[in-house]
Amino acid sequence: MPEAASAAATRAAIGDSEFDRDTAVHRRAPGVYALDLSAGWTIINAVNGGYLLAVLGRALGDALPHADPFTVSAHYLTASRPGPALVRTETVRTGRTLSTGQASLFQFDDEGNEVERIRVLASYGDLDALPDDVRTSATPPAIPPMDQCFGPEDGPAPVEGSSAIADRLMLKLDPATLGWALGQPSGRGEMRAWFGLADGRDADPLSLLLAVDALPPTAFELGLKGWVPTVELTVHVRCRPAPGPLRVSVTTRNLAGGFLEEDAEVWDSADRLVAQSRQLARARLG
Amino acid sequence: MPEAASAAATRAAIGDSEFDRDTAVHRRAPGVYALDLSAGWTIINAVNGGYLLAVLGRALGDALPHADPFTVSAHYLTASRPGPALVRTETVRTGRTLSTGQASLFQFDDEGNEVERIRVLASYGDLDALPDDVRTSATPPAIPPMDQCFGPEDGPAPVEGSSAIADRLMLKLDPATLGWALGQPSGRGEMRAWFGLADGRDADPLSLLLAVDALPPTAFELGLKGWVPTVELTVHVRCRPAPGPLRVSVTTRNLAGGFLEEDAEVWDSADRLVAQSRQLARARLG
Repeated sequence: MPEAASAAATRAAIGDSEFDRDTAVHRRAPGVYALDLSAGWTIINAVNGGYLLAVLGRALGDALPHADPFTVSAHYLTASRPGPALVRTETVRTGRTLSTGQASLFQFDDEGNEVERIRVLASYGDLDALPDDVRTSATPPAIPPMDQCFGPEDGPAPVEGSSAIADRLMLKLDPATLGWALGQPSGRGEMRAWFGLADGRDADPLSLLLAVDALPPTAFELGLKGWVPTVELTVHVRCRPAPGPLRVSVTTRNLAGGFLEEDAEVWDSADRLVAQSRQLARARLG
Repeated sequence: MPEAASAAATRAAIGDSEFDRDTAVHRRAPGVYALDLSAGWTIINAVNGGYLLAVLGRALGDALPHADPFTVSAHYLTASRPGPALVRTETVRTGRTLSTGQASLFQFDDEGNEVERIRVLASYGDLDALPDDVRTSATPPAIPPMDQCFGPEDGPAPVEGSSAIADRLMLKLDPATLGWALGQPSGRGEMRAWFGLADGRDADPLSLLLAVDALPPTAFELGLKGWVPTVELTVHVRCRPAPGPLRVSVTTRNLAGGFLEEDAEVWDSADRLVAQSRQLARARLG
């Protein structure tokens, strides 16, 4: 990734990066935002669900009186495609410390009719206004140093098929969760990685919405193949991330009845648990 | 609880129990349901959030082509009170195996204006249509036999203040998570209990929505006092529960910035993980 590499050397700034440009929304009317879904955040042909969540999160951050997503619940309805899209937001409730909004992402069928892709409920606040008090029993995931982890550029490609998103992420997977890439899945529902943006942009609450859904599916380590479409994904942003790479740990404990949960934790360079997420996804058993 | 006790002897049936009567909704028009929030499911003066979720879940089960909640995401907006209420539902998407809907619970201010209490996004399906395949690494919580656990009737009251809901639940708390009731909180964010309905009604997907939010807050074992209001609660129903008492385990790992997550697992008598939930709640630190 020569481009990404050179970009990383200069370190893109928050607000002026691939991620910011590709999640930009343009206010056309109160609560109506136009945008183009970039082909740069696709896995095989599917637009990454975390990227889509970040687009919706950016629109809500503009529409609501509070800027930071605290909890975002998304139900995925139909498959998004790169290209023109519309976000419609509704302010549900405005409070002193929290505001709640709803947003939907639409694209257009051949007749130009709107087709809803995702619907989101979210509560926003001000992360900088939270007290510093931390009483956590959670500990950062044990991931080897970055130079002992492997990314798409190290091959064998951790994500089968072409995957444009790989060029936009700094993803270094824990070898302990890479068995599937060698045809030897561990059987454990675990995926761990160092995570960043390829152009060096530091993390912010919006990019955390991407980070929770950016690793290969834990289903690969459970021996399953193919797409694991998300039905519902809820993210809690707990703290503004410090500069530097993130550590992401995703765990699946219960694969049953053709569905599985994926619990993600995101830790920043200051060893703070900055985001937690859980999604329900369909699994193709076999 | 002489009434509950005698009722338990006769074992109320699903569809004919306190829980069913108190969550009943009456269809007034397509997608419009009238109901009365019962005072029987309050903790101190707050209407239990799981009870409210079950009311919304029942309305959505009637409005959508699929009957069983698979994933329900609720954002709590304003405090509900016992009394008249309205649920408005919207069918967002109808699919072959899953349907997605939205529902809002309203009550009325002094001028009779609707005030929104909770907004929900939910995807429904048919639990009985799921394949039997189970590959889970999750194990049931270690809770002592029921006769070694303690409920409100055993005193000291696990829930401070009067609590009507205690008369409607069969709640037997693991002594290992009861330190707070003796003024000696463990400092661990854990709460475990045997759970059932006092009149003996067996569990179903709707009562699982109650079960995930029916235990005392884990914050009590973390040494906090007072109400822990839910901001957002998402439940995944993974399996139709077998008859018999449930085991509920709630864990908090990260109390920070005045918020905490509560992760609940619900296990049935057949040792199946039947529901998982996570909520983000406010905590009064100090």
